[in-house]
Amino acid sequence: MEPHPPIVAIMPVRYPQILEAVTRAGGILGSPAEAEGLVWTDPMAPDDLASVLAGSPAAWVQLPFAGVESFAEQLEPGRIWTSAKGIYGPAVAEHALALMLAAARGLHHYVKCTSWASAEVVPARRLKGSRVLIVGTGGIGRALARLLEPLEPEITAVNRSGTPMAGASSTVPTALLGEVVGQADWVVLAAPLTQETTHLFDSRMLGAMSRQAWLVNVARGGLVDTAALVESLEHGGIGGAALDVTDPEPLPDGHPLWSFSNVIITPHIANTWDMALPELAARVERNVLALGGGTPLEGQVDIALRY
Amino acid sequence: MEPHPPIVAIMPVRYPQILEAVTRAGGILGSPAEAEGLVWTDPMAPDDLASVLAGSPAAWVQLPFAGVESFAEQLEPGRIWTSAKGIYGPAVAEHALALMLAAARGLHHYVKCTSWASAEVVPARRLKGSRVLIVGTGGIGRALARLLEPLEPEITAVNRSGTPMAGASSTVPTALLGEVVGQADWVVLAAPLTQETTHLFDSRMLGAMSRQAWLVNVARGGLVDTAALVESLEHGGIGGAALDVTDPEPLPDGHPLWSFSNVIITPHIANTWDMALPELAARVERNVLALGGGTPLEGQVDIALRY
Repeated sequence: MEPHPPIVAIMPVRYPQILEAVTRAGGILGSPAEAEGLVWTDPMAPDDLASVLAGSPAAWVQLPFAGVESFAEQLEPGRIWTSAKGIYGPAVAEHALALMLAAARGLHHYVKCTSWASAEVVPARRLKGSRVLIVGTGGIGRALARLLEPLEPEITAVNRSGTPMAGASSTVPTALLGEVVGQADWVVLAAPLTQETTHLFDSRMLGAMSRQAWLVNVARGGLVDTAALVESLEHGGIGGAALDVTDPEPLPDGHPLWSFSNVIITPHIANTWDMALPELAARVERNVLALGGGTPLEGQVDIALRY
Repeated sequence: MEPHPPIVAIMPVRYPQILEAVTRAGGILGSPAEAEGLVWTDPMAPDDLASVLAGSPAAWVQLPFAGVESFAEQLEPGRIWTSAKGIYGPAVAEHALALMLAAARGLHHYVKCTSWASAEVVPARRLKGSRVLIVGTGGIGRALARLLEPLEPEITAVNRSGTPMAGASSTVPTALLGEVVGQADWVVLAAPLTQETTHLFDSRMLGAMSRQAWLVNVARGGLVDTAALVESLEHGGIGGAALDVTDPEPLPDGHPLWSFSNVIITPHIANTWDMALPELAARVERNVLALGGGTPLEGQVDIALRY
């Protein structure tokens, strides 16, 4: 296609940053009915997207999230779908690091204290020399490896194919996860939620973890069988859990996970909308440029794999 | 001196790691009366060191701490004194980073929750793009700059002379601290406690800080005027404080600092003895090798400066 200023619809037009990104890239704001590209900025409401798309010729649809599960019904061939995959990695990795360091230093214990305590109450550990297993080598996993590098842990990565991840001393395929998970002091979940990864951490996988190891989940709650996790924590099967995502989510009041002193729960804030917006706007800008210039778009979703 | 296996006394011989370090370096374990080198591994009891040294020809004495205040009376010329200076910096920097990230992500709030909350309750911030002021460019400050580098904050450093610190975009002399402190989102204290630095953060300096900024102290409690800090927190003068050291220390029960929701206190655990031991053992090994080989020892104390 000839380079041209593409007509782009933003639905809803709520965020000045996205609007500015589209116009900065030479896009012309239009309605869905005439748009070549559609930027869906509503974090919720996937159903509304279906009805908007029904009346739109848009060849390209930009979704606001990295994971596209909630839009699974809408994903249809014949359009290019792009997500936010990759761009939120550094923000989420920063949260994973915050959770790991907090657990390592016993902050979950000390912030509740109103009396000076001895260091022996909760063992403080260094990340230096510890063994970190990163499950998932997408944007989050790769960014986490970069953040961890100066802290000098030994990193093992896990992905489907076993293709080496930069920063990891070894990368193993998911099929061999059970054989390496027991060597880790930290198990960080940074994988997409797919049929293959749902309940990847079930009672068997949790049972294979070291009793000192912490499970850190900054990806999707469904990667972990919550009932199995509760049982493992009850029996001291693992050292603790730091969860930014849960299943169910939100975690209901009175749920057993709220009761453990060695569980840190944050309410899905690894990448808040405030943190995400500048990164999403930057991707929208690059993709509108690509659409106008006829070059490949960034963050394309594989409809069959749903990520 | 010809390369030779030096006789080294360890007092007391309590830690296998130190014993192994001496023998691995080719040292021969001996009594103080015959020893060429003496490794003092008792974190306390400086008085006992004096009586041991009275009957020892040891040309070299290794002390277990970075600061040698508690051994000041024992430091005498005619022997080479080495301390742990420099080697504990990375452990303390790791703790500073843990405190910063915990505060940035609101973990001090969320770990007390027993109900899912919205992200807006406590604003989660990224370190990316934030402005970090590191006061003190010794082992801790330099190590912290290295840990922060992949998180992409903008670092300003402060030291006596203004000599540039690697990793900082600018370094200013302590005399100009008051002029730059207001621009920082994070103020990290990593300076030694001297006459000059005592109460460096008094009501004036705290008053010059941004109302969103956090004060992080991993150095010595006396760097901060505690009464002024309490007053600043009471009036919302700063965003919060994360303290691994306090003045007085231990912080007494019922002290006002215990009562703030935006204060994180850890009981001087940035570098526990468990963390220190492998680093100390590694220095002992290098120094026994140097003693045997006639090369310069590492971490030498300037007796006049007592540092």
